[in-house]
Amino acid sequence: MNTNPRVGIIMGSDSDLPIMKQAAEFLDSIHVTFEIDVVSAHRTPEKMMKYAQTAHERGLQVIIAGAGGAAHLPGMIASMTPLPVIGVPIKSSNSIDGWDSILSILQMPNGIPVATVALNAGKNAGILAARILGSSDKELFLVLAKYQNSLKEKVLKTGEKLKQVGYKDYKKS
Amino acid sequence: MNTNPRVGIIMGSDSDLPIMKQAAEFLDSIHVTFEIDVVSAHRTPEKMMKYAQTAHERGLQVIIAGAGGAAHLPGMIASMTPLPVIGVPIKSSNSIDGWDSILSILQMPNGIPVATVALNAGKNAGILAARILGSSDKELFLVLAKYQNSLKEKVLKTGEKLKQVGYKDYKKS
Amino acid sequence: MNTNPRVGIIMGSDSDLPIMKQAAEFLDSIHVTFEIDVVSAHRTPEKMMKYAQTAHERGLQVIIAGAGGAAHLPGMIASMTPLPVIGVPIKSSNSIDGWDSILSILQMPNGIPVATVALNAGKNAGILAARILGSSDKELFLVLAKYQNSLKEKVLKTGEKLKQVGYKDYKKS
Amino acid sequence: MNTNPRVGIIMGSDSDLPIMKQAAEFLDSIHVTFEIDVVSAHRTPEKMMKYAQTAHERGLQVIIAGAGGAAHLPGMIASMTPLPVIGVPIKSSNSIDGWDSILSILQMPNGIPVATVALNAGKNAGILAARILGSSDKELFLVLAKYQNSLKEKVLKTGEKLKQVGYKDYKKS
Amino acid sequence: MNTNPRVGIIMGSDSDLPIMKQAAEFLDSIHVTFEIDVVSAHRTPEKMMKYAQTAHERGLQVIIAGAGGAAHLPGMIASMTPLPVIGVPIKSSNSIDGWDSILSILQMPNGIPVATVALNAGKNAGILAARILGSSDKELFLVLAKYQNSLKEKVLKTGEKLKQVGYKDYKKS
Amino acid sequence: MNTNPRVGIIMGSDSDLPIMKQAAEFLDSIHVTFEIDVVSAHRTPEKMMKYAQTAHERGLQVIIAGAGGAAHLPGMIASMTPLPVIGVPIKSSNSIDGWDSILSILQMPNGIPVATVALNAGKNAGILAARILGSSDKELFLVLAKYQNSLKEKVLKTGEKLKQVGYKDYKKS
Amino acid sequence: MNTNPRVGIIMGSDSDLPIMKQAAEFLDSIHVTFEIDVVSAHRTPEKMMKYAQTAHERGLQVIIAGAGGAAHLPGMIASMTPLPVIGVPIKSSNSIDGWDSILSILQMPNGIPVATVALNAGKNAGILAARILGSSDKELFLVLAKYQNSLKEKVLKTGEKLKQVGYKDYKKS
Amino acid sequence: MNTNPRVGIIMGSDSDLPIMKQAAEFLDSIHVTFEIDVVSAHRTPEKMMKYAQTAHERGLQVIIAGAGGAAHLPGMIASMTPLPVIGVPIKSSNSIDGWDSILSILQMPNGIPVATVALNAGKNAGILAARILGSSDKELFLVLAKYQNSLKEKVLKTGEKLKQVGYKDYKKS
Repeated sequence: MNTNPRVGIIMGSDSDLPIMKQAAEFLDSIHVTFEIDVVSAHRTPEKMMKYAQTAHERGLQVIIAGAGGAAHLPGMIASMTPLPVIGVPIKSSNSIDGWDSILSILQMPNGIPVATVALNAGKNAGILAARILGSSDKELFLVLAKYQNSLKEKVLKTGEKLKQVGYKDYKKS
Repeated sequence: MNTNPRVGIIMGSDSDLPIMKQAAEFLDSIHVTFEIDVVSAHRTPEKMMKYAQTAHERGLQVIIAGAGGAAHLPGMIASMTPLPVIGVPIKSSNSIDGWDSILSILQMPNGIPVATVALNAGKNAGILAARILGSSDKELFLVLAKYQNSLKEKVLKTGEKLKQVGYKDYKKS
Repeated sequence: MNTNPRVGIIMGSDSDLPIMKQAAEFLDSIHVTFEIDVVSAHRTPEKMMKYAQTAHERGLQVIIAGAGGAAHLPGMIASMTPLPVIGVPIKSSNSIDGWDSILSILQMPNGIPVATVALNAGKNAGILAARILGSSDKELFLVLAKYQNSLKEKVLKTGEKLKQVGYKDYKKS
Repeated sequence: MNTNPRVGIIMGSDSDLPIMKQAAEFLDSIHVTFEIDVVSAHRTPEKMMKYAQTAHERGLQVIIAGAGGAAHLPGMIASMTPLPVIGVPIKSSNSIDGWDSILSILQMPNGIPVATVALNAGKNAGILAARILGSSDKELFLVLAKYQNSLKEKVLKTGEKLKQVGYKDYKKS
Repeated sequence: MNTNPRVGIIMGSDSDLPIMKQAAEFLDSIHVTFEIDVVSAHRTPEKMMKYAQTAHERGLQVIIAGAGGAAHLPGMIASMTPLPVIGVPIKSSNSIDGWDSILSILQMPNGIPVATVALNAGKNAGILAARILGSSDKELFLVLAKYQNSLKEKVLKTGEKLKQVGYKDYKKS
Repeated sequence: MNTNPRVGIIMGSDSDLPIMKQAAEFLDSIHVTFEIDVVSAHRTPEKMMKYAQTAHERGLQVIIAGAGGAAHLPGMIASMTPLPVIGVPIKSSNSIDGWDSILSILQMPNGIPVATVALNAGKNAGILAARILGSSDKELFLVLAKYQNSLKEKVLKTGEKLKQVGYKDYKKS
Repeated sequence: MNTNPRVGIIMGSDSDLPIMKQAAEFLDSIHVTFEIDVVSAHRTPEKMMKYAQTAHERGLQVIIAGAGGAAHLPGMIASMTPLPVIGVPIKSSNSIDGWDSILSILQMPNGIPVATVALNAGKNAGILAARILGSSDKELFLVLAKYQNSLKEKVLKTGEKLKQVGYKDYKKS
Repeated sequence: MNTNPRVGIIMGSDSDLPIMKQAAEFLDSIHVTFEIDVVSAHRTPEKMMKYAQTAHERGLQVIIAGAGGAAHLPGMIASMTPLPVIGVPIKSSNSIDGWDSILSILQMPNGIPVATVALNAGKNAGILAARILGSSDKELFLVLAKYQNSLKEKVLKTGEKLKQVGYKDYKKS
């Protein structure tokens, strides 16, 4: 469905999709092309290796990889491509409060960085990918500046509303 | 000394320099231009705001921000520019094993991502900045591919040496 | 509704209101005037800066700031005013058991303290604000002494009731 | 030596003095009067109770209490006076990385807040005490504003120096 | 209802009763007399002090104290009596996974021990109190030996049942 | 039901069965014989000791032991047999997020290893037991290779499906 | 040297002696008889079992057991005697900040309590043992009351000294 | 030097050798053949893949893999061979107290177990490898039983010595 994808979104299991689709939705909303796939470090190591090694040739500029538990996918992808890799720690069912996933992704050794975002922060991974592309794409940069401004407007409005209706009657819309 | 900087390296205090200079050294080694400064979220908030808001105009494409303890610098910078911001958690003297710094940088809310690297990983921040630039700069991409290959060669050599001299006589060079 | 506010209550998002309104309710109950607003460090940095810098001129004597995750609001406010700032760590939805919020607020560097209260302790933030005002306001001091006494009375009564009805039949009222 | 003390500084053991004297030194530097004593919740409970109950009568407006391990002093003091109490968690010798002290001080129940500062942050406790007094003392408020400005100047200078000498030759002064 | 109580069971709030009544039920089941009360370190400090100081005179031989969050009750009681004090960490509503309560009770300084049991382990506190009494009360010792044997019998039976019905059809009774 | 068991599966309590039966189910699925029992380190120490000491004589080649909280069963079994022992940390009801169980099983002293698997990973314990047997049983080795391949096939299919139906319409089957 | 020991002090390894001798020294100082031995749960399980099962017959009234890492000794002893068992978590060389030892000792299941003291708190274990004996030994009770009073005197003196010499010149004696 | 290796020992970096050589030394001491190499998941992914995929063909029966930080080596090896894989978490220089390494190795997803040993427990990894081989190698089993007995003898001797010389004069030999 996506042609000429600039961003690759991969996840270790389809149970990670509810988190990872937030990245897809954000990229869709600003018309950045992407591809999306399930690639497991532990169950499909050969596919993972091929995915990483051919990513650049296929035109990808950024890769977003999400995984839970002992989350090796982002780091392994980063070890096999010089593209920037964004890691999304996912709090899976038997996770220890998400610590396992965070530390497995964040604490990469010297030489092989992974750009880690917050726990379950699929949306922020999408935004970060767009920021990376936008750093050398003026049009996209302006779209992101506009998006950032829209966040501000929304918060300013809740502040106004809170002052008007008072804290006792305020209802989150 | 650096002209036309593409990367901005900032830190909350000059006591962070031993970590943050590793980013500078890496960028120097691959001839990526950068600027370096001390910008404190808590002691120079106005300078910080101006730094973030003018970063793009001054030609920066990526910002690397390092800080320790309640580390607000990376997140605050990211809140005032659409450029990609890399956060380096630093284990400062009264830090609680680095947890404070990691969580203050990593756990950003939806809308404002920070690309977090490992604790004290100044070098990886430099590499990640280069990867971001390299995602739309073919020449730089090739430099990074070559760098990644050099890491491999080094490890392969230690493996060969270990087999030759045996584990009893091996000395880390 | 509040005229001449002495306390400013701010929060990073309106989803923090259920916690932060506990501060408002306590201050209301002892007739301490306050204002309440949504101010986000990451989405409305300019409003935050203006809020902090003009707080004293507008007559505020204490500021209560609540936020979750990478919670930068209390510390950033404290960096731009010499007023005492009370920080309320909030356990938001993707928080890591509240640790992120606590450490982001508590572990401020030398020079810029934040008076941190317990996780989700909106009410205690209100009481602490009143104690701060009461330290140079005799009337308020007496109100607080009376409040503290009322807590004692309530606990003494539960003790009496437990002895009377016995542990098997006791029901929390 | 201090007459008419406005701040009370107490600590659970004289081994806490290296941390707690930082509060004293700051208050001395801005001419805020204080008294200093060793009061142990677990070894001198009667003295502690008397200290808290008479604090207000003796003219104290703020109390700073530091302790390590299972640190009950700040919370117990706060339970017996309506004055604002600042708690300083201290990382003592057999502490578990300071977590025990932080949580024992921070996580007070509803009704009895302790204004907790960072681990070992004796200096910040002194500054917070001054901010509390300054919230209704214009002269002191101005002193604190000036102090806050001096922090800014120092950081701005390190930034200038770093730019001038370059990161390779920079030496922390 | 209990005459000549040998064990005192106290808790910081009546919301701790569901946990603390497990101690009472065990003691009832083996006919050890006890008294039960609500005593809050932070809301009724004077009652707490009196409770501890008169415990021995009133014939108590062991005190069981349960509390949550910044749990000061067990340690403060232990500081005002030479009787053995058993502490029960309770995971209260805004607790940080129980860590606050555990560390506040466990990490007592040299000189003032608290016999800490597991999180929410009201029943084990009752058993430990009985073991303490039983260490110089032969009859009670035998009762406890019998109780310990009954635990064994129960587990042996579940093992037998599991072997008989097989793991597929086993249902926990 | 199982004759000539090669694997022993034991657990500290029948409440651990939902986790531990996953090991049994896996072994059943590949026709590896096993026995299953409830053996509590703390309630049936004599049975535990006998179980460990006679395991080898009865023909067992691997033991899987699961327990929660202060989980002593796997380590104690390993101390009384030279057979490989697999430990399954179980997150029981009053566990502290599973940390207690993990650390009690994992952190064995030099001389007495326990092969620890992930929290609640009963199934992985079964697979690890099979791998251990398969390391000197060619037929079983091939069965495991086939199983590992089947995992790959399943993940590859979810990837294909995701690409076909798109992330918006994908439903986990 | 000790005749008719009332307290048994055991430890998992002689490397625990520096901590465990503090219990011995305290008991010696108040003339409570004890025996001391090395008993390893994992290396001498049979000795451990015999030790626990015969403790009561040999006249022991309390057992103090210290161990590090996956510390099973205190809990296993408690599972084989109805005597009160005091557990001392020891921070051994490869311990994870002592968490492993604390949780392995503290988090015992229902039915088998261990009276846990603070990390490395050998001295407090000795004091707790004495308190347990003192709960039915008036003479010993008075000795402990006197000891508790001596702690108070020492702290009161440091307070006096601090006031006299001032915080600048105070030196810990 | 080793011919026909039955165990493969690999590590992510030669800085892990001081820990991993303990496995080698133990295997040497009981005449179990092994090979040893440096294989980095992140720097030599192709070598790693080849190592895992050919391990069985080359006659290996068990693989021991050690790594620090975001430690992906053990899990990735386990994903590409049905042999049993033992993981050794190593506390490297910028590790967060070893938690990162432990969780990255331990928390593997269903289907791909890693037999994890304690932090820095290179020796226990060697022993576990031997136990695995010994489970179907009677001679080796007896060697391990003898080794286990020698541990007991050593501890029994330290106990005897402690009783003889007394705790005051005991010196660890």
